[in-house]
Amino acid sequence: MIANDPYAELERRFARLSDVGRAAAILNWDRSTMMPDGASGDRADQLATLGVIAHEMIAAPEMSDLLSRAEEGRASLDAWQAANLREMRRAWVHESALPADLVEARTRACSACELAWRSAKKNADFKSLLPTLTEVLNIMCRVGEAKAAALGTSLYDALLDEFEPGGRSVSIDALFDELRGFLPDLLGRVIERQKSRPDPLPLEGPFPAEAQRRLGEELIRRIGFDFHHGRLDVSAHPFTGGTADDVRITTRYDEQDFARSLMGVLHETGHGLYEAGLPKAWRRQPVGNARGMTLHESQSLLMEMQACRSDAFVAFAAPRMRVAFGKDGPAWTEDNIHRLYTRVAPGFIRVDADEVTYPLHIMLRYRLERAMLAGDLALADLPGAWNDGMRELLGIVPPDDSLGCLQDIHWPDGGWGYFPTYTLGALAAAQLFAAARQANPDLMAAIGRGDFAPLLGWLRSNVHGKGSIATTDEILTGATGAPLGAAAFKAHLESRYLPA
Amino acid sequence: MIANDPYAELERRFARLSDVGRAAAILNWDRSTMMPDGASGDRADQLATLGVIAHEMIAAPEMSDLLSRAEEGRASLDAWQAANLREMRRAWVHESALPADLVEARTRACSACELAWRSAKKNADFKSLLPTLTEVLNIMCRVGEAKAAALGTSLYDALLDEFEPGGRSVSIDALFDELRGFLPDLLGRVIERQKSRPDPLPLEGPFPAEAQRRLGEELIRRIGFDFHHGRLDVSAHPFTGGTADDVRITTRYDEQDFARSLMGVLHETGHGLYEAGLPKAWRRQPVGNARGMTLHESQSLLMEMQACRSDAFVAFAAPRMRVAFGKDGPAWTEDNIHRLYTRVAPGFIRVDADEVTYPLHIMLRYRLERAMLAGDLALADLPGAWNDGMRELLGIVPPDDSLGCLQDIHWPDGGWGYFPTYTLGALAAAQLFAAARQANPDLMAAIGRGDFAPLLGWLRSNVHGKGSIATTDEILTGATGAPLGAAAFKAHLESRYLPA
Repeated sequence: MIANDPYAELERRFARLSDVGRAAAILNWDRSTMMPDGASGDRADQLATLGVIAHEMIAAPEMSDLLSRAEEGRASLDAWQAANLREMRRAWVHESALPADLVEARTRACSACELAWRSAKKNADFKSLLPTLTEVLNIMCRVGEAKAAALGTSLYDALLDEFEPGGRSVSIDALFDELRGFLPDLLGRVIERQKSRPDPLPLEGPFPAEAQRRLGEELIRRIGFDFHHGRLDVSAHPFTGGTADDVRITTRYDEQDFARSLMGVLHETGHGLYEAGLPKAWRRQPVGNARGMTLHESQSLLMEMQACRSDAFVAFAAPRMRVAFGKDGPAWTEDNIHRLYTRVAPGFIRVDADEVTYPLHIMLRYRLERAMLAGDLALADLPGAWNDGMRELLGIVPPDDSLGCLQDIHWPDGGWGYFPTYTLGALAAAQLFAAARQANPDLMAAIGRGDFAPLLGWLRSNVHGKGSIATTDEILTGATGAPLGAAAFKAHLESRYLPA
Repeated sequence: MIANDPYAELERRFARLSDVGRAAAILNWDRSTMMPDGASGDRADQLATLGVIAHEMIAAPEMSDLLSRAEEGRASLDAWQAANLREMRRAWVHESALPADLVEARTRACSACELAWRSAKKNADFKSLLPTLTEVLNIMCRVGEAKAAALGTSLYDALLDEFEPGGRSVSIDALFDELRGFLPDLLGRVIERQKSRPDPLPLEGPFPAEAQRRLGEELIRRIGFDFHHGRLDVSAHPFTGGTADDVRITTRYDEQDFARSLMGVLHETGHGLYEAGLPKAWRRQPVGNARGMTLHESQSLLMEMQACRSDAFVAFAAPRMRVAFGKDGPAWTEDNIHRLYTRVAPGFIRVDADEVTYPLHIMLRYRLERAMLAGDLALADLPGAWNDGMRELLGIVPPDDSLGCLQDIHWPDGGWGYFPTYTLGALAAAQLFAAARQANPDLMAAIGRGDFAPLLGWLRSNVHGKGSIATTDEILTGATGAPLGAAAFKAHLESRYLPA
């Protein structure tokens, strides 16, 4: 049955598809936060079947005709509908590019490799990962080839496009080259400057998990997290899940170190506010989705790095920290806490990296995954190439692969083409925050009073509320006057880490 | 595409159907336990779409042919496969009996009525419920007619059949007549006997929720609840949800009265153990499902009423209660606690009723819902008929409809034909427990030591592990030597409440 109004029929189908995807999002959240350990097979069956159902819905034989006919009638659509139709086509191209058996093979290979990775990482045993990771890489090459043919891009760009729609490595190369040009020198100067002062005093615990949770909730409520449409829970690996109307953020509490969890919660809150702020009228349609991982990561980094590691916010938060944990003394001054929160030091682990060294971790992964996908780097040679890259970019070499090429889940899990979006997000965060400050001269003062309304209002109208109506660069240009660049990020690092 | 092996193709399809149903079960659990209040519309969309998808899977045009062809080849199936095929047919008959628009109309009408019921109940305002409840009743009549035609039963039996497969009102009438014959007299004698002794002493709180939770977990772990395959959480209305491999039971803590929550947890544990004990090899197939609501309720009542309100179990649990709440004194003796747990008194509210008066509440509802479905009782006359029935059966009349005909969610929610299974379950519980004791002379002594292994082992092999391979009466006959009857229940009440 093909409807008379093909666009309306597509909206109906994509709404159902969205329902299935949102159901799966809640089930994924539950898996990481609530599910008892014995239920993983049960849950895997449920999620696999929802995945198959979603694939069948979007790759249904009549979809191609529906899309073509709707596109012929594009003239009668308004701007949101037209953008929605474009996003439907995009989703269809990605999904129908892959034969069903390849989709299934990818799911199976990634599951097996992720399992192998857990013990390989624990035992720093890269060799044990080689068989399953080889399988994943082979499959990702097939996925990339199939999508490249459908999208008319290179293999790498086809994989990248899934995470960052329209993202192309030629632009990333230019931005990363620019970063490569100034980061090492800047890092050296920051380290020198830090050495010229005594180290900041450590904050001594213990910090009871319950007190941490209360403090986190108090602060993110201030920032605008709506507990009528979201929750904060505990999981082994922090993430933002759920749906736009039901945002589920997670953290993990270390009773010796509250800062990591707190900054993590503020980071996930940035993701969550983006989701919650997506256009309400388009909740169940592709155009209502977040634009891509660059803007998504920009929102978490804007909140964590730009806003909440600022001296203005630390001045607001520090007294609340002292009350939350019943602490006082020289370690608990605003100045000392701010210095702790903006400490720079090269390290082995990406997720623990400060904002100066983080892009160097990303460049390494970007370089290596492109080489592996192109067949220029054999998987067996990855540990050596990793360590060479760490020496070159950060000046340190991990003592074993668990602190080296085994640290991230992305490659075992099939997330090839994802890594660059972290740093693209950091650049976008700096650029957006600078524009928000320019538009609201009172912005930092408001943040210093714990008033995030001006910032959130600006983000809602300039980023969140746009959904996927435009490209990442179009949204950035509308909000900041320019497409994605490195200038604001550079200016931010210099002003924060090398103040005059 | 019709497969060469129609039975194998049906197994494949029903496994996917089961996956969708289990996914929905977790989402329903989340809705009652975790979901923030602002997400109810979002969740309703997800669940409605999963419901439509499930309906489309089972009512797909090729299913009829697949079932017929598989039935022609029945000779080559083993006993489990043959029973599975019978259950597939049963599911198909129920689902395909209803046109899609009736399914949708029912969902919409029940949602609207449930919402109206919440405020009607709060305000004891039956009139405000009339419009939506009339709509639900009309739709349930249409549903019952459609299913009656498909099943070849009466309208009422067709509705009952959904909850209790093969259940027929002619058998219920006989059993309820028998109960009606002895319960009022027995109730009078129990009340007289209670009066001959001083009232038991009340247990005085407060009982912190956390201490209640720990005690509940300790006891249900003993009973056999497996926290690797289940959770205990809080919800406004206690229930057992989730899946066989991921059993989610809930309770609600009243800090002035721990007994209600504790007995509720033991009750839900009975449901949960049934689910967990269903045949593992048939997890994703209809024959692996619980047999029906009679056996399901028998398992919760067997655990709560038969096992855990026994003096043997109270003797085991009382010292643990004293430790859990740091209490002591005459109210906390085994004897006093046992007397509290077996107190009998007619009351207005079904869910608070003791096991002597509970069936009288059910008889009232069974009588009234049949009259309403048959058109013999106008909805507007329900409150009067309710109060007349309460006077006749229990000798008391509720002061308002909130304590009367508005107390239960079942009718607003479309659960017509459900009520009798509560009492059928109570009869089955007594019959099964008596057989288990006969098979294991040490059973009560073991329960007195907190050792539930003999009981659980017997239930696993005689009830849980049977799934839906046989009818309720066949399972009961295999386990107890006779189909469902009232004799064991009568003997149980007499021995517990009128000991010599």
